[in-house]
Amino acid sequence: MLIKLRGRSGTRVQAKSSNGSIKMMLNSRGGMHKKKETNGERKFKAHALVAQTEDPTHALTVTIADHNVNRLDEWIVDARTLTIYPAIKVFYLFAVMPLVAYSPLVFNQSFASPRLCSYLGFVVEPLSNTVRCAMKSYKLSDLTQTEVDNLKARPRINFSSIFSTVEPIVNDVRNRGDAAVEDYTLRFDKVKLENIIENVNELPDPELDEAVRESFDVAYSNIYAFHAAQKPVEKVVENMEGVRCKRVARSIASVGLYVPGGTAVLPSTALMLAVPAQIAGCKTIVLATPPSGDGSICKEVLYCAKKAGVTHILKAGGAQAIAAMAWGTSSCPKVEKIYGPGNQYVTAAKMILQNSEAMVSIDMPAGPSEVLVIADKYASPVHIAADLLSQAEHGPDSQVVLVIAGEGVDIKAIDEEITNQCNSLPRGEFASKALSHSFTVFARDMVEAVAFSNLYAPEHLIINVKDAEKWESFIENAGSVFLGQWTPESVGDYASGTNHVLPTYGYARMYSGVSLDSFLKYITIQSLTEEGLAKLGPYVATMAEVEGLDAHKRAVTLRLQDIKARQIV
Amino acid sequence: MLIKLRGRSGTRVQAKSSNGSIKMMLNSRGGMHKKKETNGERKFKAHALVAQTEDPTHALTVTIADHNVNRLDEWIVDARTLTIYPAIKVFYLFAVMPLVAYSPLVFNQSFASPRLCSYLGFVVEPLSNTVRCAMKSYKLSDLTQTEVDNLKARPRINFSSIFSTVEPIVNDVRNRGDAAVEDYTLRFDKVKLENIIENVNELPDPELDEAVRESFDVAYSNIYAFHAAQKPVEKVVENMEGVRCKRVARSIASVGLYVPGGTAVLPSTALMLAVPAQIAGCKTIVLATPPSGDGSICKEVLYCAKKAGVTHILKAGGAQAIAAMAWGTSSCPKVEKIYGPGNQYVTAAKMILQNSEAMVSIDMPAGPSEVLVIADKYASPVHIAADLLSQAEHGPDSQVVLVIAGEGVDIKAIDEEITNQCNSLPRGEFASKALSHSFTVFARDMVEAVAFSNLYAPEHLIINVKDAEKWESFIENAGSVFLGQWTPESVGDYASGTNHVLPTYGYARMYSGVSLDSFLKYITIQSLTEEGLAKLGPYVATMAEVEGLDAHKRAVTLRLQDIKARQIV
Repeated sequence: MLIKLRGRSGTRVQAKSSNGSIKMMLNSRGGMHKKKETNGERKFKAHALVAQTEDPTHALTVTIADHNVNRLDEWIVDARTLTIYPAIKVFYLFAVMPLVAYSPLVFNQSFASPRLCSYLGFVVEPLSNTVRCAMKSYKLSDLTQTEVDNLKARPRINFSSIFSTVEPIVNDVRNRGDAAVEDYTLRFDKVKLENIIENVNELPDPELDEAVRESFDVAYSNIYAFHAAQKPVEKVVENMEGVRCKRVARSIASVGLYVPGGTAVLPSTALMLAVPAQIAGCKTIVLATPPSGDGSICKEVLYCAKKAGVTHILKAGGAQAIAAMAWGTSSCPKVEKIYGPGNQYVTAAKMILQNSEAMVSIDMPAGPSEVLVIADKYASPVHIAADLLSQAEHGPDSQVVLVIAGEGVDIKAIDEEITNQCNSLPRGEFASKALSHSFTVFARDMVEAVAFSNLYAPEHLIINVKDAEKWESFIENAGSVFLGQWTPESVGDYASGTNHVLPTYGYARMYSGVSLDSFLKYITIQSLTEEGLAKLGPYVATMAEVEGLDAHKRAVTLRLQDIKARQIV
Repeated sequence: MLIKLRGRSGTRVQAKSSNGSIKMMLNSRGGMHKKKETNGERKFKAHALVAQTEDPTHALTVTIADHNVNRLDEWIVDARTLTIYPAIKVFYLFAVMPLVAYSPLVFNQSFASPRLCSYLGFVVEPLSNTVRCAMKSYKLSDLTQTEVDNLKARPRINFSSIFSTVEPIVNDVRNRGDAAVEDYTLRFDKVKLENIIENVNELPDPELDEAVRESFDVAYSNIYAFHAAQKPVEKVVENMEGVRCKRVARSIASVGLYVPGGTAVLPSTALMLAVPAQIAGCKTIVLATPPSGDGSICKEVLYCAKKAGVTHILKAGGAQAIAAMAWGTSSCPKVEKIYGPGNQYVTAAKMILQNSEAMVSIDMPAGPSEVLVIADKYASPVHIAADLLSQAEHGPDSQVVLVIAGEGVDIKAIDEEITNQCNSLPRGEFASKALSHSFTVFARDMVEAVAFSNLYAPEHLIINVKDAEKWESFIENAGSVFLGQWTPESVGDYASGTNHVLPTYGYARMYSGVSLDSFLKYITIQSLTEEGLAKLGPYVATMAEVEGLDAHKRAVTLRLQDIKARQIV
């Protein structure tokens, strides 16, 4: 964990995380100060850099690059100092202009013009006494095209560094199989496993609370119905008489489903991935999920897995689980495609493996979860705040965007609702971190609002405006869309029937969410009669000649000769 | 170009390639002999290693690793020596057992048991006076499961070495844009371009021979009809009253189509990629293809591009073309997905870029083209040979597999047809190279034959047996299937209507060929009424609670409170 701060002599900086807290006192020269603390199992190493300022009325957001997990993180701290910047920008400044970066001037208010602050990644905001969940805001019509384009960019993920962390794990699992998976599970999950694979049909049915069981049953039914309706219809096209073509679907034989563990158990993800695999008829369905501390499988995940026909459960998470499924081990079946969300190690492992000799494909490159809410003056501030927070609570790297369409929206009421609801959330800390790098955009009207959403291409798009349905046809890029005031994202996350494994990071521009098709591949089939070849063949021969492919031509002309000979007979 | 041979003193080794020929005389000790020749623009460096043998009745296949293009290649040569081995195995032998490898004993007939030869990668075959296009053969029922599994593996492509060649090009194009593309086009294609991009609507219509135009028009119509029939139907699913879900398709806004140049012009590929993009309604369609020597665009490619609504033509090939489309340059639009076949540099660039910050996806990782022909005693040896050769002529790395189903097939007649047809082909040299690493498999019956095909997962599958249609439902893994004696692969390559951009290398196990769907992405949309949320909401709240996601729960319960309040009012 690395914090870079510099500030007025004696400034006290406090930062809290779910793992504990760090306290620092800047030294007498307002310069660098290091302090090591042991905090539970983790060691922190802190460097401080805060801008000097005479104005005590500003809140400080400290951005943290946590080298333990390689994640960029943001913390809001209480300090009598100005200024705030994403760590990556600060590191950049350090690298290219060390002298300037160390000078208080750089972070001084004199630089605090909105344009420059935005460029440098600064946020300047007035101090409040409670932790604020404030979002930056922009008026679209005030921005240049470049500035609007910049808004669509997600925080940069440094994949080459993550790849270099993940690659040795992937290779180790390739070479050592089960033993490597066991070692990494012991190291990362602190669990010693006897066996990494469970055959689902050998596991007893888990006992669930009746209401919980019923909820998952309802979700299962809706997800099943929506995905079963996607079954492709075979259609024969006879372009010319005797030239029949069609396209048939086949299930992918062996699939791997990743159900993340970590800060939450996610049985809903087990349903979202296993139900379409079940409908597709995949023969081998391996579900990978990190084991609980006692080595067991989360009972709700097991319930969903059994119900949706999962054949094997791999009790592992992270890159090691992805690698085990991609290469196959002595106990884990080799799969042909890997699905599901996950942290950046999981995503990196999927990306590395799809370009490797493992012969495996992936559903999509998944990034942190996102929502874009378009709201007008008819939307309830309570609902808007609740929807934004339901995304923000996923984790500190969640992306949350609020687009205000038109006039008359009570922004203050929304802000207050966000702060109030956030402060009473168990995962409020995650949510406030997520909100600190999120933003509000003011659009003149719905046309401008939807255009911005299409540019941003959000994973989840909530259109909480009057007559929301009429904007459906204007949506070009989004993972899943929630129309109207009674359709929170949560319904799609769990039980409306749509899939919640969706493209993030702007990939909604070219990827679809997981669907029945994700578990199928299509084969085209053609069959020509003698008459069909007699009619089509000469055109084919001409084209083959143009391309200089004589054998292609002959495969037709030698047959045409035979047809002619038969006709003479 | 590196040839490793060792043989009887004085052995003369001749190898021909399309670029010229190399002649070598082994030195008096039967050992290493180097000779450098300048051949056109290329320099060859040859090392010789041929097994010593007293038996002059064996043909020699020399395997070549061409370091100029990093490609493994195989040549059949005429020499009075035994034995033949893929270069990669020989290099391996050199690395681990230099002493043994240098000893003539290793390559001596005493080691020529079929099992050991197969393990070491040797092929021993009697000498014939003409160049033979012989294929190795295996009887499935004689093989172990491991041996059958090995047959399904394609020649290994060393992507990490190709990646390291391609990565600097990709990065250079990212940094320098048009200038980099111009430089690489000058270096690799020997063409100096004024501008790399042409706006298609500014280009005059090319003049084509009437018969050629008509052929491409017929192909266009059939491809259009087959892909238009794939248009998705929107279907609303109402799982519960007031819970409506649907899935809508949207075109990918900007797409990049790669049409290879090299040893053949491929206007048919322009059709295969551009027609579905046109039907999908993609707004920006960039077609990249290497320019002719005079900097012009192949007129047939231009004709197809115009007809199918291509908006821009990028006059570049290779990794530089892929990079230009992925990053965008000052003249080339940035695309969101890249399609099409290409050599290993093109494929490597696509693979690198799909894992990069370019935010681009690809259709599939494409390898060398393949066909698997299943034939029974009713199939004409002439047709079988023509179909095998039409695949083999694509290039020396093409994969060709013949599966003989059941008894009564005249193998000798097929062999003779292959040799005869091959010797009279303009691209016969490519074909014979391809055939030298291809193989024949003998299956007891159609069940065993189709099972092997499913294991192999060929790009193209020709089922040339009696009543071919009845085997359709047993096909699990294939790119495109050709049923019956009147359906050569050529019809699908050009004009039956199906797409010829298909998964190779075994990727048919999890990838589909290019289709209309390749140019679309799907968005799910849900909309709940007040009643719908009242019914579904409590289940969602329960599931969110299980997952510990309170804000998700509240997004529902706060709305449910509002609904209750409205009902009381």
